[in-house]
Amino acid sequence: MTRQGNSPTLGELLEPFAHRCEQDLGRWLIEPGVPGTLAEAMRYCTLGGGKRLRPALVHMAAEACGRTGSNLTARAAAAIEMVHCCSLVHDDLPAMDDDTLRRGRPTAHVKFGQAMAILVGDALLTRAFGLLAKADDRRSGRLTCELARAAGAAGMVAGQVADMDLCQLPEGLEGIRFIHLRKTAAMLRAAARMGAICADADDKTVDALGDYAEAIGLAFQLFDDLLDVTGAAETIGKTPGKDAGADKRTAAAQLSLDGARKLGNELTDRAIASLESLGEKADTLICLTRLPALRTH
Amino acid sequence: MTRQGNSPTLGELLEPFAHRCEQDLGRWLIEPGVPGTLAEAMRYCTLGGGKRLRPALVHMAAEACGRTGSNLTARAAAAIEMVHCCSLVHDDLPAMDDDTLRRGRPTAHVKFGQAMAILVGDALLTRAFGLLAKADDRRSGRLTCELARAAGAAGMVAGQVADMDLCQLPEGLEGIRFIHLRKTAAMLRAAARMGAICADADDKTVDALGDYAEAIGLAFQLFDDLLDVTGAAETIGKTPGKDAGADKRTAAAQLSLDGARKLGNELTDRAIASLESLGEKADTLICLTRLPALRTH
Repeated sequence: MTRQGNSPTLGELLEPFAHRCEQDLGRWLIEPGVPGTLAEAMRYCTLGGGKRLRPALVHMAAEACGRTGSNLTARAAAAIEMVHCCSLVHDDLPAMDDDTLRRGRPTAHVKFGQAMAILVGDALLTRAFGLLAKADDRRSGRLTCELARAAGAAGMVAGQVADMDLCQLPEGLEGIRFIHLRKTAAMLRAAARMGAICADADDKTVDALGDYAEAIGLAFQLFDDLLDVTGAAETIGKTPGKDAGADKRTAAAQLSLDGARKLGNELTDRAIASLESLGEKADTLICLTRLPALRTH
Repeated sequence: MTRQGNSPTLGELLEPFAHRCEQDLGRWLIEPGVPGTLAEAMRYCTLGGGKRLRPALVHMAAEACGRTGSNLTARAAAAIEMVHCCSLVHDDLPAMDDDTLRRGRPTAHVKFGQAMAILVGDALLTRAFGLLAKADDRRSGRLTCELARAAGAAGMVAGQVADMDLCQLPEGLEGIRFIHLRKTAAMLRAAARMGAICADADDKTVDALGDYAEAIGLAFQLFDDLLDVTGAAETIGKTPGKDAGADKRTAAAQLSLDGARKLGNELTDRAIASLESLGEKADTLICLTRLPALRTH
Protein backbone atom coordinates (compact mmCIF):
# COMPACT_ATOMS: atom_id res chain seq x y z
CA MET A 1 0.00 0.00 0.00
CA THR A 2 1.53 3.38 -1.01
CA ARG A 3 0.75 6.80 0.47
CA GLN A 4 -0.33 9.52 -1.99
CA GLY A 5 0.55 13.07 -0.97
CA ASN A 6 -1.00 13.96 2.41
CA SER A 7 -3.88 11.49 2.26
CA PRO A 8 -4.36 9.61 5.51
CA THR A 9 -4.28 5.82 5.40
CA LEU A 10 -7.50 3.92 5.92
CA GLY A 11 -6.37 3.08 9.45
CA GLU A 12 -5.64 6.74 10.28
CA LEU A 13 -9.01 7.88 8.99
CA LEU A 14 -10.94 5.21 10.87
CA GLU A 15 -8.90 5.29 14.09
CA PRO A 16 -11.06 7.68 16.16
CA PHE A 17 -14.20 5.71 15.29
CA ALA A 18 -12.45 2.40 15.89
CA HIS A 19 -11.38 3.63 19.31
CA ARG A 20 -14.91 4.69 20.22
CA CYS A 21 -16.33 1.41 18.94
CA GLU A 22 -13.81 -0.65 20.90
CA GLN A 23 -14.88 1.11 24.10
CA ASP A 24 -18.57 0.68 23.36
CA LEU A 25 -18.14 -3.01 22.50
CA GLY A 26 -16.24 -3.52 25.75
CA ARG A 27 -19.14 -1.94 27.63
CA TRP A 28 -22.03 -3.66 25.89
CA LEU A 29 -20.77 -7.01 24.67
CA ILE A 30 -21.27 -9.15 27.77
CA GLU A 31 -24.61 -9.22 29.60
CA PRO A 32 -24.84 -10.33 33.23
CA GLY A 33 -25.03 -14.11 33.57
CA VAL A 34 -22.75 -15.13 30.67
CA PRO A 35 -20.48 -18.09 31.54
CA GLY A 36 -16.84 -16.99 31.85
CA THR A 37 -15.45 -19.15 29.05
CA LEU A 38 -18.13 -17.94 26.63
CA ALA A 39 -17.54 -14.31 27.61
CA GLU A 40 -13.80 -14.79 27.01
CA ALA A 41 -14.43 -16.26 23.56
CA MET A 42 -16.88 -13.47 22.68
CA ARG A 43 -14.30 -10.85 23.68
CA TYR A 44 -11.57 -12.61 21.69
CA CYS A 45 -13.70 -12.56 18.54
CA THR A 46 -14.83 -8.95 18.92
CA LEU A 47 -12.26 -6.82 20.74
CA GLY A 48 -8.63 -6.06 19.99
CA GLY A 49 -8.36 -5.22 16.34
CA GLY A 50 -10.11 -4.83 13.03
CA LYS A 51 -10.59 -1.74 10.88
CA ARG A 52 -14.11 -1.16 12.29
CA LEU A 53 -15.21 0.10 8.89
CA ARG A 54 -18.91 -0.63 9.52
CA PRO A 55 -19.19 1.16 12.87
CA ALA A 56 -17.09 4.02 11.46
CA LEU A 57 -19.59 4.36 8.61
CA VAL A 58 -22.47 4.51 11.11
CA HIS A 59 -20.76 7.38 12.96
CA MET A 60 -19.57 9.14 9.79
CA ALA A 61 -23.02 8.99 8.20
CA ALA A 62 -24.61 10.41 11.37
CA GLU A 63 -22.02 13.20 11.36
CA ALA A 64 -22.70 13.91 7.69
CA CYS A 65 -26.33 14.44 8.72
CA GLY A 66 -25.28 16.88 11.42
CA ARG A 67 -25.56 14.73 14.55
CA THR A 68 -22.58 13.25 16.40
CA GLY A 69 -21.98 10.88 19.25
CA SER A 70 -25.52 9.95 20.31
CA ASN A 71 -26.07 6.84 22.43
CA LEU A 72 -28.29 5.37 19.72
CA THR A 73 -25.59 5.87 17.06
CA ALA A 74 -23.04 4.17 19.31
CA ARG A 75 -25.43 1.23 19.84
CA ALA A 76 -26.09 0.91 16.12
CA ALA A 77 -22.34 0.96 15.45
CA ALA A 78 -21.60 -1.68 18.09
CA ALA A 79 -24.51 -3.85 16.92
CA ILE A 80 -23.43 -3.93 13.27
CA GLU A 81 -19.84 -4.74 14.31
CA MET A 82 -21.10 -7.65 16.45
CA VAL A 83 -23.00 -9.04 13.45
CA HIS A 84 -19.89 -8.58 11.29
CA CYS A 85 -17.76 -10.43 13.87
CA CYS A 86 -20.32 -13.26 13.93
CA SER A 87 -19.94 -13.61 10.17
CA LEU A 88 -16.14 -13.68 10.41
CA VAL A 89 -16.20 -16.41 13.07
CA HIS A 90 -18.69 -18.57 11.16
CA ASP A 91 -17.05 -17.96 7.76
CA ASP A 92 -13.68 -19.06 9.18
CA LEU A 93 -15.01 -22.49 10.26
CA PRO A 94 -13.55 -25.61 8.61
CA ALA A 95 -16.88 -26.34 6.88
CA MET A 96 -16.80 -22.85 5.33
CA ASP A 97 -13.58 -21.02 4.35
CA ASP A 98 -11.40 -23.07 6.73
CA ASP A 99 -9.18 -20.18 7.79
CA THR A 100 -6.75 -20.57 10.68
CA LEU A 101 -5.53 -16.96 10.86
CA ARG A 102 -7.57 -13.77 11.30
CA ARG A 103 -6.19 -10.32 12.14
CA GLY A 104 -2.87 -12.07 12.71
CA ARG A 105 -4.24 -14.36 15.44
CA PRO A 106 -5.61 -17.93 15.46
CA THR A 107 -9.26 -17.99 14.37
CA ALA A 108 -11.96 -18.70 16.96
CA HIS A 109 -12.36 -22.40 16.18
CA VAL A 110 -8.58 -22.93 16.34
CA LYS A 111 -8.43 -21.18 19.70
CA PHE A 112 -11.66 -22.41 21.34
CA GLY A 113 -12.85 -25.36 19.24
CA GLN A 114 -15.58 -25.51 16.61
CA ALA A 115 -18.51 -25.89 19.00
CA MET A 116 -17.58 -22.73 20.89
CA ALA A 117 -16.98 -20.87 17.62
CA ILE A 118 -20.46 -21.74 16.35
CA LEU A 119 -22.01 -20.69 19.67
CA VAL A 120 -20.00 -17.46 19.89
CA GLY A 121 -21.35 -16.45 16.48
CA ASP A 122 -24.92 -17.14 17.59
CA ALA A 123 -24.33 -15.20 20.81
CA LEU A 124 -22.91 -12.17 18.94
CA LEU A 125 -25.77 -12.11 16.44
CA THR A 126 -28.35 -12.31 19.21
CA ARG A 127 -26.60 -9.69 21.34
CA ALA A 128 -26.57 -7.23 18.44
CA PHE A 129 -30.35 -7.26 18.16
CA GLY A 130 -30.81 -7.19 21.93
CA LEU A 131 -28.57 -4.13 22.13
CA LEU A 132 -30.58 -2.24 19.50
CA ALA A 133 -33.88 -3.12 21.18
CA LYS A 134 -32.61 -2.15 24.60
CA ALA A 135 -32.03 1.40 23.38
CA ASP A 136 -35.81 1.72 23.80
CA ASP A 137 -35.86 4.40 21.12
CA ARG A 138 -38.54 5.13 18.52
CA ARG A 139 -35.94 4.41 15.81
CA SER A 140 -34.84 0.99 17.20
CA GLY A 141 -37.33 -0.95 15.07
CA ARG A 142 -36.23 0.70 11.87
CA LEU A 143 -32.56 0.14 12.71
CA THR A 144 -33.31 -3.52 13.44
CA CYS A 145 -35.08 -3.90 10.08
CA GLU A 146 -32.07 -2.42 8.26
CA LEU A 147 -29.61 -4.68 10.09
CA ALA A 148 -31.69 -7.84 9.74
CA ARG A 149 -32.26 -7.27 6.04
CA ALA A 150 -28.54 -6.64 5.35
CA ALA A 151 -27.28 -9.52 7.49
CA GLY A 152 -29.91 -12.14 6.68
CA ALA A 153 -30.94 -14.61 4.01
CA ALA A 154 -31.29 -11.97 1.27
CA GLY A 155 -28.10 -10.14 2.33
CA MET A 156 -24.84 -11.24 3.90
CA VAL A 157 -25.92 -14.86 4.42
CA ALA A 158 -26.93 -15.04 0.74
CA GLY A 159 -23.49 -13.65 -0.15
CA GLN A 160 -21.74 -16.40 1.77
CA VAL A 161 -24.08 -19.04 0.29
CA ALA A 162 -23.09 -17.76 -3.16
CA ASP A 163 -19.40 -17.52 -2.27
CA MET A 164 -19.50 -21.16 -1.10
CA ASP A 165 -21.00 -22.18 -4.45
CA LEU A 166 -24.23 -23.25 -2.77
CA CYS A 167 -26.56 -21.45 -5.17
CA GLN A 168 -26.77 -20.63 -8.87
CA LEU A 169 -25.01 -17.47 -10.01
CA PRO A 170 -24.74 -15.40 -13.18
CA GLU A 171 -21.56 -16.06 -15.17
CA GLY A 172 -18.39 -14.01 -14.89
CA LEU A 173 -18.24 -10.50 -13.47
CA GLU A 174 -22.01 -10.44 -12.82
CA GLY A 175 -21.62 -13.42 -10.51
CA ILE A 176 -18.83 -11.65 -8.62
CA ARG A 177 -20.99 -8.55 -8.32
CA PHE A 178 -23.82 -10.72 -6.93
CA ILE A 179 -21.50 -11.96 -4.18
CA HIS A 180 -19.88 -8.61 -3.40
CA LEU A 181 -23.22 -6.79 -3.22
CA ARG A 182 -24.55 -9.23 -0.63
CA LYS A 183 -21.47 -10.35 1.25
CA THR A 184 -19.84 -6.94 1.75
CA ALA A 185 -21.78 -4.01 0.29
CA ALA A 186 -25.12 -4.85 1.95
CA MET A 187 -23.70 -4.40 5.45
CA LEU A 188 -21.81 -1.19 4.54
CA ARG A 189 -25.01 0.14 2.99
CA ALA A 190 -26.90 -0.73 6.18
CA ALA A 191 -24.21 0.92 8.31
CA ALA A 192 -24.51 4.23 6.48
CA ARG A 193 -28.32 4.08 6.43
CA MET A 194 -28.40 3.31 10.15
CA GLY A 195 -26.17 6.29 10.91
CA ALA A 196 -28.47 8.52 8.87
CA ILE A 197 -31.56 7.10 10.61
CA CYS A 198 -29.97 7.74 14.02
CA ALA A 199 -29.50 11.36 12.90
CA ASP A 200 -33.17 11.65 11.84
CA ALA A 201 -32.21 12.29 8.23
CA ASP A 202 -34.98 12.36 5.60
CA ASP A 203 -35.53 9.30 3.40
CA LYS A 204 -33.71 10.82 0.43
CA THR A 205 -30.59 11.37 2.51
CA VAL A 206 -30.80 7.87 4.02
CA ASP A 207 -30.94 6.47 0.49
CA ALA A 208 -28.07 8.67 -0.73
CA LEU A 209 -25.79 7.58 2.11
CA GLY A 210 -26.75 3.96 1.51
CA ASP A 211 -25.90 4.29 -2.19
CA TYR A 212 -22.57 5.87 -1.31
CA ALA A 213 -21.66 3.02 1.05
CA GLU A 214 -22.74 0.33 -1.36
CA ALA A 215 -20.46 1.79 -4.03
CA ILE A 216 -17.44 2.00 -1.72
CA GLY A 217 -18.26 -1.51 -0.50
CA LEU A 218 -17.99 -2.83 -4.04
CA ALA A 219 -14.77 -0.86 -4.56
CA PHE A 220 -13.37 -2.11 -1.28
CA GLN A 221 -14.13 -5.74 -2.10
CA LEU A 222 -12.55 -5.31 -5.53
CA PHE A 223 -9.41 -4.00 -3.83
CA ASP A 224 -9.49 -6.84 -1.32
CA ASP A 225 -9.68 -9.45 -4.10
CA LEU A 226 -6.75 -7.90 -5.94
CA LEU A 227 -4.66 -7.41 -2.80
CA ASP A 228 -5.25 -11.06 -2.01
CA VAL A 229 -3.40 -11.90 -5.21
CA THR A 230 -0.58 -9.39 -4.85
CA GLY A 231 -0.36 -8.71 -1.10
CA ALA A 232 1.59 -10.20 1.76
CA ALA A 233 0.31 -11.81 4.96
CA GLU A 234 1.50 -8.96 7.19
CA THR A 235 -0.51 -6.40 5.18
CA ILE A 236 -3.81 -8.21 5.00
CA GLY A 237 -3.59 -10.33 8.16
CA LYS A 238 -4.52 -13.57 6.44
CA THR A 239 -2.85 -16.12 4.20
CA PRO A 240 -2.23 -14.39 0.80
CA GLY A 241 -3.38 -16.11 -2.36
CA LYS A 242 -5.78 -18.25 -0.34
CA ASP A 243 -8.94 -17.25 -2.20
CA ALA A 244 -7.40 -17.68 -5.64
CA GLY A 245 -5.74 -20.91 -4.52
CA ALA A 246 -9.11 -22.24 -3.43
CA ASP A 247 -10.36 -21.39 -6.94
CA LYS A 248 -13.02 -19.07 -5.62
CA ARG A 249 -14.76 -16.52 -7.72
CA THR A 250 -12.70 -13.34 -7.45
CA ALA A 251 -12.44 -10.18 -9.48
CA ALA A 252 -8.77 -11.03 -10.07
CA ALA A 253 -9.86 -14.03 -12.11
CA GLN A 254 -12.14 -11.91 -14.31
CA LEU A 255 -10.42 -8.56 -14.72
CA SER A 256 -7.03 -7.23 -15.81
CA LEU A 257 -5.33 -4.89 -13.34
CA ASP A 258 -6.23 -1.99 -15.64
CA GLY A 259 -9.83 -3.17 -15.85
CA ALA A 260 -10.04 -3.44 -12.09
CA ARG A 261 -8.56 0.04 -11.59
CA LYS A 262 -11.08 1.49 -14.06
CA LEU A 263 -14.00 -0.22 -12.32
CA GLY A 264 -12.70 0.91 -8.89
CA ASN A 265 -12.54 4.51 -10.06
CA GLU A 266 -16.05 4.35 -11.53
CA LEU A 267 -17.36 3.04 -8.22
CA THR A 268 -15.65 5.74 -6.16
CA ASP A 269 -16.87 8.44 -8.56
CA ARG A 270 -20.39 7.08 -8.13
CA ALA A 271 -19.95 7.07 -4.35
CA ILE A 272 -18.85 10.73 -4.39
CA ALA A 273 -21.73 11.72 -6.65
CA SER A 274 -24.19 10.22 -4.16
CA LEU A 275 -22.99 12.68 -1.51
CA GLU A 276 -23.53 15.82 -3.59
CA SER A 277 -26.54 17.11 -1.64
CA LEU A 278 -24.73 16.89 1.70
CA GLY A 279 -22.06 19.51 0.92
CA GLU A 280 -19.10 19.97 3.26
CA LYS A 281 -20.55 17.77 6.00
CA ALA A 282 -19.69 14.79 3.81
CA ASP A 283 -15.97 15.66 3.61
CA THR A 284 -14.85 12.71 5.77
CA LEU A 285 -16.89 10.32 3.65
CA ILE A 286 -15.39 11.77 0.46
CA CYS A 287 -11.93 11.44 2.01
CA LEU A 288 -12.67 7.74 2.56
CA THR A 289 -13.26 7.21 -1.18
CA ARG A 290 -9.97 8.93 -2.04
CA LEU A 291 -7.84 6.57 0.01
CA PRO A 292 -5.01 4.90 -1.88
CA ALA A 293 -6.40 1.60 -0.67
CA LEU A 294 -9.53 2.15 -2.73
CA ARG A 295 -8.07 3.79 -5.83
CA THR A 296 -4.82 2.06 -6.64
CA HIS A 297 -3.44 -1.47 -7.19
CA MET B 1 -46.71 -42.69 26.64
CA THR B 2 -50.05 -43.71 28.21
CA ARG B 3 -53.35 -41.80 28.05
CA GLN B 4 -54.93 -41.02 31.43
CA GLY B 5 -58.75 -40.82 31.39
CA ASN B 6 -59.91 -38.14 28.92
CA SER B 7 -56.71 -36.05 29.00
CA PRO B 8 -55.58 -35.00 25.56
CA THR B 9 -52.05 -35.87 24.48
CA LEU B 10 -49.48 -33.11 24.18
CA GLY B 11 -49.87 -33.26 20.40
CA GLU B 12 -53.66 -32.91 20.59
CA LEU B 13 -53.45 -29.95 22.94
CA LEU B 14 -50.88 -28.12 20.84
CA GLU B 15 -52.29 -29.01 17.41
CA PRO B 16 -54.41 -25.88 16.77
CA PHE B 17 -51.49 -23.63 17.71
CA ALA B 18 -49.05 -25.75 15.72
CA HIS B 19 -51.32 -25.43 12.68
CA ARG B 20 -51.52 -21.67 13.04
CA CYS B 21 -47.75 -21.40 13.53
CA GLU B 22 -47.02 -23.56 10.48
CA GLN B 23 -49.13 -21.21 8.34
CA ASP B 24 -47.48 -18.09 9.77
CA LEU B 25 -43.98 -19.52 9.31
CA GLY B 26 -44.84 -20.39 5.71
CA ARG B 27 -45.92 -16.79 5.16
CA TRP B 28 -43.08 -14.99 6.93
CA LEU B 29 -40.03 -17.23 6.71
CA ILE B 30 -38.64 -16.23 3.31
CA GLU B 31 -38.08 -12.58 2.40
CA PRO B 32 -37.86 -11.45 -1.22
CA GLY B 33 -34.37 -11.97 -2.67
CA VAL B 34 -33.38 -15.17 -0.86
CA PRO B 35 -31.48 -17.62 -3.14
CA GLY B 36 -33.62 -20.68 -3.95
CA THR B 37 -31.33 -23.27 -2.38
CA LEU B 38 -31.10 -21.30 0.86
CA ALA B 39 -34.88 -20.80 0.96
CA GLU B 40 -35.36 -24.54 0.46
CA ALA B 41 -32.99 -25.34 3.32
CA MET B 42 -34.67 -22.77 5.59
CA ARG B 43 -38.08 -24.32 4.87
CA TYR B 44 -36.74 -27.84 5.48
CA CYS B 45 -35.44 -26.82 8.92
CA THR B 46 -38.54 -24.92 9.97
CA LEU B 47 -41.69 -26.30 8.32
CA GLY B 48 -43.24 -29.74 8.39
CA GLY B 49 -43.23 -30.97 11.94
CA GLY B 50 -42.32 -30.29 15.53
CA LYS B 51 -44.53 -29.87 18.56
CA ARG B 52 -44.39 -26.06 18.30
CA LEU B 53 -44.42 -25.83 22.08
CA ARG B 54 -42.86 -22.35 22.17
CA PRO B 55 -45.25 -20.69 19.71
CA ALA B 56 -48.15 -22.49 21.40
CA LEU B 57 -47.09 -20.99 24.73
CA VAL B 58 -47.01 -17.51 23.17
CA HIS B 59 -50.60 -17.94 21.95
CA MET B 60 -51.82 -19.67 25.12
CA ALA B 61 -50.31 -16.99 27.36
CA ALA B 62 -51.93 -14.24 25.28
CA GLU B 63 -55.26 -16.09 25.53
CA ALA B 64 -54.85 -16.45 29.29
CA CYS B 65 -54.55 -12.66 29.38
CA GLY B 66 -57.75 -12.28 27.40
CA ARG B 67 -56.43 -11.50 23.92
CA THR B 68 -56.35 -13.99 21.04
CA GLY B 69 -54.99 -14.12 17.55
CA SER B 70 -53.39 -10.70 17.11
CA ASN B 71 -50.86 -10.17 14.34
CA LEU B 72 -48.21 -9.26 16.92
CA THR B 73 -48.80 -12.49 18.86
CA ALA B 74 -48.48 -14.50 15.65
CA ARG B 75 -45.21 -12.73 14.82
CA ALA B 76 -43.84 -13.33 18.30
CA ALA B 77 -44.78 -17.01 18.04
CA ALA B 78 -43.18 -17.40 14.61
CA ALA B 79 -40.06 -15.52 15.72
CA ILE B 80 -39.40 -17.68 18.77
CA GLU B 81 -39.93 -20.83 16.71
CA MET B 82 -37.37 -19.61 14.14
CA VAL B 83 -34.83 -19.06 16.92
CA HIS B 84 -35.62 -22.52 18.30
CA CYS B 85 -35.13 -24.08 14.85
CA CYS B 86 -31.78 -22.26 14.53
CA SER B 87 -30.67 -23.86 17.79
CA LEU B 88 -31.74 -27.32 16.62
CA VAL B 89 -29.84 -26.98 13.34
CA HIS B 90 -26.66 -25.72 15.01
CA ASP B 91 -26.87 -28.18 17.94
CA ASP B 92 -27.16 -31.09 15.49
CA LEU B 93 -23.85 -30.20 13.76
CA PRO B 94 -20.98 -32.70 13.94
CA ALA B 95 -18.93 -30.31 16.11
CA MET B 96 -21.83 -30.15 18.59
CA ASP B 97 -24.19 -33.08 19.29
CA ASP B 98 -23.47 -34.77 15.94
CA ASP B 99 -27.05 -35.92 15.33
CA THR B 100 -28.08 -37.35 11.98
CA LEU B 101 -31.82 -37.69 12.64
CA ARG B 102 -34.31 -35.00 13.71
CA ARG B 103 -38.11 -35.33 13.67
CA GLY B 104 -37.57 -38.59 11.82
CA ARG B 105 -35.69 -36.93 8.92
CA PRO B 106 -32.01 -36.38 8.11
CA THR B 107 -30.64 -33.37 9.98
CA ALA B 108 -29.84 -30.19 8.04
CA HIS B 109 -26.10 -30.80 7.69
CA VAL B 110 -26.72 -34.37 6.47
CA LYS B 111 -29.20 -33.10 3.89
CA PHE B 112 -27.54 -29.85 2.78
CA GLY B 113 -23.95 -29.99 4.08
CA GLN B 114 -22.41 -28.32 7.11
CA ALA B 115 -21.79 -24.93 5.49
CA MET B 116 -25.44 -24.56 4.51
CA ALA B 117 -26.56 -25.75 7.96
CA ILE B 118 -24.46 -23.09 9.70
CA LEU B 119 -25.78 -20.41 7.34
CA VAL B 120 -29.42 -21.54 7.67
CA GLY B 121 -29.15 -21.16 11.44
CA ASP B 122 -27.76 -17.65 11.06
CA ALA B 123 -30.50 -16.80 8.57
CA LEU B 124 -33.26 -18.07 10.87
CA LEU B 125 -31.91 -16.19 13.88
CA THR B 126 -31.65 -12.97 11.89
CA ARG B 127 -35.09 -13.39 10.33
CA ALA B 128 -36.69 -13.82 13.76
CA PHE B 129 -35.51 -10.41 14.91
CA GLY B 130 -36.35 -8.80 11.59
CA LEU B 131 -39.88 -10.19 11.81
CA LEU B 132 -40.44 -8.75 15.29
CA ALA B 133 -39.07 -5.35 14.27
CA LYS B 134 -41.15 -5.27 11.12
CA ALA B 135 -44.34 -5.45 13.21
CA ASP B 136 -43.65 -1.74 13.83
CA ASP B 137 -45.48 -2.00 17.13
CA ARG B 138 -44.78 -0.16 20.40
CA ARG B 139 -44.20 -3.57 22.04
CA SER B 140 -41.67 -4.85 19.44
CA GLY B 141 -38.66 -3.60 21.38
CA ARG B 142 -39.74 -5.29 24.60
CA LEU B 143 -40.45 -8.54 22.76
CA THR B 144 -37.01 -8.37 21.12
CA CYS B 145 -35.35 -7.85 24.52
CA GLU B 146 -37.15 -10.91 25.94
CA LEU B 147 -36.20 -13.07 22.95
CA ALA B 148 -32.58 -11.89 22.80
CA ARG B 149 -32.06 -12.40 26.52
CA ALA B 150 -33.54 -15.93 26.44
CA ALA B 151 -31.73 -17.02 23.28
CA GLY B 152 -28.37 -15.38 23.85
CA ALA B 153 -25.14 -15.76 25.80
CA ALA B 154 -26.84 -15.75 29.21
CA GLY B 155 -29.69 -18.01 28.04
CA MET B 156 -29.98 -20.77 25.46
CA VAL B 157 -26.43 -20.35 24.11
CA ALA B 158 -25.10 -20.59 27.68
CA GLY B 159 -27.15 -23.78 28.12
CA GLN B 160 -25.55 -25.36 25.07
CA VAL B 161 -22.08 -24.19 26.17
CA ALA B 162 -22.72 -25.92 29.50
CA ASP B 163 -24.21 -29.02 27.86
CA MET B 164 -21.09 -29.30 25.68
CA ASP B 165 -18.91 -29.15 28.81
CA LEU B 166 -17.39 -25.86 27.70
CA CYS B 167 -17.82 -24.08 31.05
CA GLN B 168 -17.66 -24.87 34.74
CA LEU B 169 -20.82 -26.21 36.35
CA PRO B 170 -22.06 -27.03 39.84
CA GLU B 171 -21.87 -30.73 40.70
CA GLY B 172 -24.75 -33.19 40.33
CA LEU B 173 -28.39 -32.16 40.07
CA GLU B 174 -27.54 -28.44 40.41
CA GLY B 175 -25.43 -28.71 37.26
CA ILE B 176 -28.30 -30.33 35.41
CA ARG B 177 -30.65 -27.60 36.61
CA PHE B 178 -28.15 -24.99 35.34
CA ILE B 179 -28.31 -26.53 31.87
CA HIS B 180 -32.08 -27.12 31.79
CA LEU B 181 -32.86 -23.59 33.00
CA ARG B 182 -30.84 -22.04 30.19
CA LYS B 183 -31.12 -24.55 27.36
CA THR B 184 -34.88 -25.19 27.58
CA ALA B 185 -36.68 -23.26 30.29
CA ALA B 186 -35.37 -19.80 29.32
CA MET B 187 -37.02 -19.96 25.89
CA LEU B 188 -40.31 -21.32 27.27
CA ARG B 189 -40.29 -18.58 29.89
CA ALA B 190 -39.69 -16.01 27.15
CA ALA B 191 -42.50 -17.50 25.04
CA ALA B 192 -45.06 -17.12 27.83
CA ARG B 193 -43.83 -13.63 28.75
CA MET B 194 -43.96 -12.55 25.10
CA GLY B 195 -47.56 -13.78 24.80
CA ALA B 196 -48.50 -11.82 27.92
CA ILE B 197 -46.71 -8.70 26.62
CA CYS B 198 -48.57 -8.99 23.30
CA ALA B 199 -51.79 -9.03 25.34
CA ASP B 200 -50.76 -5.91 27.28
CA ALA B 201 -50.75 -7.79 30.58
CA ASP B 202 -49.41 -6.00 33.68
CA ASP B 203 -45.89 -6.81 34.88
CA LYS B 204 -47.11 -9.12 37.65
CA THR B 205 -49.01 -11.26 35.16
CA VAL B 206 -46.06 -11.30 32.73
CA ASP B 207 -43.87 -12.56 35.59
CA ALA B 208 -46.45 -15.15 36.70
CA LEU B 209 -46.76 -16.61 33.20
CA GLY B 210 -42.99 -16.64 32.86
CA ASP B 211 -42.63 -18.52 36.16
CA TYR B 212 -45.27 -21.02 35.02
CA ALA B 213 -43.45 -21.70 31.76
CA GLU B 214 -40.06 -21.99 33.40
CA ALA B 215 -41.43 -24.65 35.76
CA ILE B 216 -43.04 -26.69 32.98
CA GLY B 217 -39.85 -26.24 30.96
CA LEU B 218 -37.83 -27.87 33.73
CA ALA B 219 -40.46 -30.63 34.04
CA PHE B 220 -40.50 -31.16 30.29
CA GLN B 221 -36.71 -31.44 30.10
CA LEU B 222 -36.74 -33.91 33.01
CA PHE B 223 -39.25 -36.01 31.08
CA ASP B 224 -37.18 -35.73 27.92
CA ASP B 225 -34.04 -36.96 29.72
CA LEU B 226 -35.87 -39.94 31.18
CA LEU B 227 -37.67 -40.79 27.94
CA ASP B 228 -34.31 -40.73 26.21
CA VAL B 229 -33.29 -43.64 28.44
CA THR B 230 -36.53 -45.60 28.21
CA GLY B 231 -38.10 -44.48 24.92
CA ALA B 232 -37.99 -45.70 21.36
CA ALA B 233 -36.93 -43.84 18.24
CA GLU B 234 -40.45 -43.68 16.82
CA THR B 235 -41.72 -41.91 19.94
CA ILE B 236 -39.05 -39.29 20.30
CA GLY B 237 -37.90 -38.94 16.68
CA LYS B 238 -34.22 -39.27 17.47
CA THR B 239 -31.79 -42.05 18.32
CA PRO B 240 -32.76 -43.32 21.82
CA GLY B 241 -30.07 -43.60 24.48
CA LYS B 242 -27.88 -41.17 22.52
CA ASP B 243 -27.47 -38.61 25.31
CA ALA B 244 -26.70 -41.21 27.97
CA GLY B 245 -24.45 -43.07 25.56
CA ALA B 246 -22.49 -39.88 24.94
CA ASP B 247 -22.09 -39.64 28.72
CA LYS B 248 -23.80 -36.28 28.89
CA ARG B 249 -25.18 -34.80 32.04
CA THR B 250 -28.77 -35.99 32.29
CA ALA B 251 -31.31 -36.22 35.09
CA ALA B 252 -31.40 -39.99 34.46
CA ALA B 253 -27.82 -40.23 35.66
CA GLN B 254 -28.61 -38.39 38.90
CA LEU B 255 -32.14 -39.42 39.92
CA SER B 256 -34.05 -42.63 40.50
CA LEU B 257 -37.31 -42.94 38.56
CA ASP B 258 -39.18 -42.24 41.81
CA GLY B 259 -37.00 -39.22 42.51
CA ALA B 260 -37.60 -37.89 39.00
CA ARG B 261 -41.38 -38.41 39.31
CA LYS B 262 -41.41 -36.54 42.62
CA LEU B 263 -39.41 -33.63 41.17
CA GLY B 264 -41.64 -33.55 38.09
CA ASN B 265 -44.76 -33.33 40.24
CA GLU B 266 -43.26 -30.56 42.39
CA LEU B 267 -42.47 -28.57 39.25
CA THR B 268 -45.95 -28.97 37.78
CA ASP B 269 -47.53 -28.03 41.13
CA ARG B 270 -45.39 -24.91 41.15
CA ALA B 271 -46.39 -24.14 37.57
CA ILE B 272 -50.11 -24.43 38.47
CA ALA B 273 -49.66 -22.26 41.57
CA SER B 274 -48.15 -19.49 39.38
CA LEU B 275 -51.43 -19.30 37.43
CA GLU B 276 -53.68 -18.78 40.45
CA SER B 277 -54.49 -15.12 39.80
CA LEU B 278 -55.60 -15.81 36.22
CA GLY B 279 -58.61 -18.00 37.12
CA GLU B 280 -60.44 -19.93 34.40
CA LYS B 281 -58.65 -18.17 31.54
CA ALA B 282 -55.61 -20.26 32.41
CA ASP B 283 -57.42 -23.59 31.97
CA THR B 284 -55.51 -24.56 28.81
CA LEU B 285 -52.20 -23.82 30.50
CA ILE B 286 -53.23 -25.91 33.52
CA CYS B 287 -54.28 -28.70 31.16
CA LEU B 288 -50.75 -28.61 29.68
CA THR B 289 -49.20 -29.31 33.08
CA ARG B 290 -51.52 -32.29 33.64
CA LEU B 291 -50.44 -34.10 30.50
CA PRO B 292 -49.23 -37.65 31.06
CA ALA B 293 -46.06 -36.66 29.21
CA LEU B 294 -45.19 -34.28 32.03
CA ARG B 295 -46.38 -36.26 35.05
CA THR B 296 -45.50 -39.89 34.43
CA HIS B 297 -42.45 -42.00 33.50
